[in-house]
Amino acid sequence: MALIVQKFGGTSVANPERIKNVARRVAKYRAQGDQVVVVVSAMSGVTDGLIKLAKDITALPSEREMDMLLATGEQQTIALAAIALHALGLQAVSLTGAQAGIVTDGVHTKAKIRNITPKQVHSLLDAGNVVIVAGFQGQTSEGQITTLGRGGSDLTAIALAAALKADLCQIYTDVDGVYTADPRLVPGAKKLSEIAYDEMLELAGSGAKVMQLRSVEFAKKFNVIFEVRSSLNDNPGTIVKEETNSMEDVVVRGVSLDKNQAKITLFSVPDQPGRAARIFRALSDAAINVDMIVQNVSHDGGVRATDLSFTVDKPDLLKASTVIEGLKAEVGFKESVADEQIGKLSIVGVGMRSHSGVAAKMFDVLAHEGVNIGMISTSEIKISVVIALAQGEQAMKALHEAFIE
Amino acid sequence: MALIVQKFGGTSVANPERIKNVARRVAKYRAQGDQVVVVVSAMSGVTDGLIKLAKDITALPSEREMDMLLATGEQQTIALAAIALHALGLQAVSLTGAQAGIVTDGVHTKAKIRNITPKQVHSLLDAGNVVIVAGFQGQTSEGQITTLGRGGSDLTAIALAAALKADLCQIYTDVDGVYTADPRLVPGAKKLSEIAYDEMLELAGSGAKVMQLRSVEFAKKFNVIFEVRSSLNDNPGTIVKEETNSMEDVVVRGVSLDKNQAKITLFSVPDQPGRAARIFRALSDAAINVDMIVQNVSHDGGVRATDLSFTVDKPDLLKASTVIEGLKAEVGFKESVADEQIGKLSIVGVGMRSHSGVAAKMFDVLAHEGVNIGMISTSEIKISVVIALAQGEQAMKALHEAFIE
Repeated sequence: MALIVQKFGGTSVANPERIKNVARRVAKYRAQGDQVVVVVSAMSGVTDGLIKLAKDITALPSEREMDMLLATGEQQTIALAAIALHALGLQAVSLTGAQAGIVTDGVHTKAKIRNITPKQVHSLLDAGNVVIVAGFQGQTSEGQITTLGRGGSDLTAIALAAALKADLCQIYTDVDGVYTADPRLVPGAKKLSEIAYDEMLELAGSGAKVMQLRSVEFAKKFNVIFEVRSSLNDNPGTIVKEETNSMEDVVVRGVSLDKNQAKITLFSVPDQPGRAARIFRALSDAAINVDMIVQNVSHDGGVRATDLSFTVDKPDLLKASTVIEGLKAEVGFKESVADEQIGKLSIVGVGMRSHSGVAAKMFDVLAHEGVNIGMISTSEIKISVVIALAQGEQAMKALHEAFIE
Repeated sequence: MALIVQKFGGTSVANPERIKNVARRVAKYRAQGDQVVVVVSAMSGVTDGLIKLAKDITALPSEREMDMLLATGEQQTIALAAIALHALGLQAVSLTGAQAGIVTDGVHTKAKIRNITPKQVHSLLDAGNVVIVAGFQGQTSEGQITTLGRGGSDLTAIALAAALKADLCQIYTDVDGVYTADPRLVPGAKKLSEIAYDEMLELAGSGAKVMQLRSVEFAKKFNVIFEVRSSLNDNPGTIVKEETNSMEDVVVRGVSLDKNQAKITLFSVPDQPGRAARIFRALSDAAINVDMIVQNVSHDGGVRATDLSFTVDKPDLLKASTVIEGLKAEVGFKESVADEQIGKLSIVGVGMRSHSGVAAKMFDVLAHEGVNIGMISTSEIKISVVIALAQGEQAMKALHEAFIE
């Protein structure tokens, strides 16, 4: 008998028929004698509909009231899921985030989980119930309803699995698991049976949109082993866990292409302390997320100067360019150039640490494909390059073939 | 400066535009310096939509889970109402029933309010907020979400007004107030400026569908003066309160016609102790509500026997007839006859107590109209008769003309 936490996202509970499917899946595990905690999101479309109602009233609704409003989406799903389980003859009880003991800080719309008191969940499980918990929500110690922000339901599931010391946490989604590359772009992409937290983090940060970073970070921190799998079939998914020695046998676990980045280059930035800090402080103050940063030393006449490049999310490009141009006089660079037509191509794998020559091989493959490299950035287990967007998919396929197939 | 509780029903908050209207009305009272507590229902259509989702899963969803599901409707409205008030520059905070301190018993889908701890509401009011409370819901002392059943939002408003010792409780609805008769049927019907609790109760129990009985009963019990008025205009409504001496000057406050009753007559019931009890126990066990009961003593040959008539809600008629036929042998009556084509016509007024001849005048008017009386039942402040449905509206107009115009 295992204790399993199962999380189902919005498309998996989009309507009564799909909620019944979820119930049938849960019933199978119960029939094996497992204890099951189910975490659900709002039915797909519900959250957007509620946001629209609020925006029809005012452009900038209060975050506290948005939490009050949006928390109803998950509350509806837990009740319907409990009803569907009852219809199969199972005992089931639904709990809001607050009732499940999920205590957060008071930062509305992006609250952080402070702690979980799973007493109620445990006693309901022990009494033979499936316990259905509303994802994405909690309450402050003062009783205010909060939501956890994007990817919040995954976080609820993983945090509950940690608090309950669950044997397994299953994240059901509309894909079969984590792939070596996006199967829509790379026909030879294969599903991974397992992946290390760090690899999953690097892949998620490189545009592979399976899960939000924060849920994976939380799982890594509390060592929660979880499985990403499909709610549409019974195929085993991908187990995400702490790396093992055998994982290092694989040099490259996956290849990802992020088409959502844009690049800004500042030419001839005077090479003096504080200039870079000034630039990135201004971007941060404007709430612009910077991903890659590359700086090369160059000589501009007699003055030592550098060229500085960085990437931002495409939708932030205009804002970032405006911020940068505003700093021209103060920072003293010569000109800035923005480029939207880029792709960030990454290879990820914990095996890189013990295998040399990975970067060399990557650059060889790209050179062979006639792909010019605009920026390079590396971590212990990832190498990312910025290339022309038009060559992105071709380059990804070549890397996948060279390293994985 | 007064403390006012204002309740808005589902049609008054049906969409963002109407919610903004509610906010503008609240803002007017705030501008006068009043403290305002707003109680809202779910947007019209929301509750029915949620019930449909549950029924699409199973015919008989658990009542605990229906409460979890339906409580989200009001929770959405409170958040949207707070957002609308913010947009007008007012401070406002929404509270679920639980957060507002509304503690109920554990009878899901028709919970009774046990007590209200309005500490949170008071301190938010004192800090300058409009406090918006979800109607229709509460929580048990163990933290289970409950709903109060039909008319529950009115009850929330009146119970909060009592707990807060509010100066005034306004029930906003889609009619202007309480009328002497249904204005759609009686052109001469007039809006009442005031009415006694008991009159309101008798009218509500006679088919005038302004409010549920239980809210009026609660108001009477805790002496909460409330006003029924329109959310569509600024006309003063009808004040409902304890009767005053001057109210007795009016003999008949209102005339009502209930077309939703049906009559069953049992002929020749042996006149022995326990027979009537047996009949009405069986009906009660089948959850059938009986309204009027009339019994006449008659002689059936040598045995003393009675004819017994009673009325039930029309939708219950078939079930009631089946129950009654099943008792035929045991109770020993000769036959039972059901009649759907009836109307229950009532005149109501606390003035009746001190004015004699009211019944005589009523029967005279009906006789003059050629209306035959099938059953008569009286209370201290009401006289009801059952007549042929086809004559109902004509008879109501005649009584209204004779007693009120």
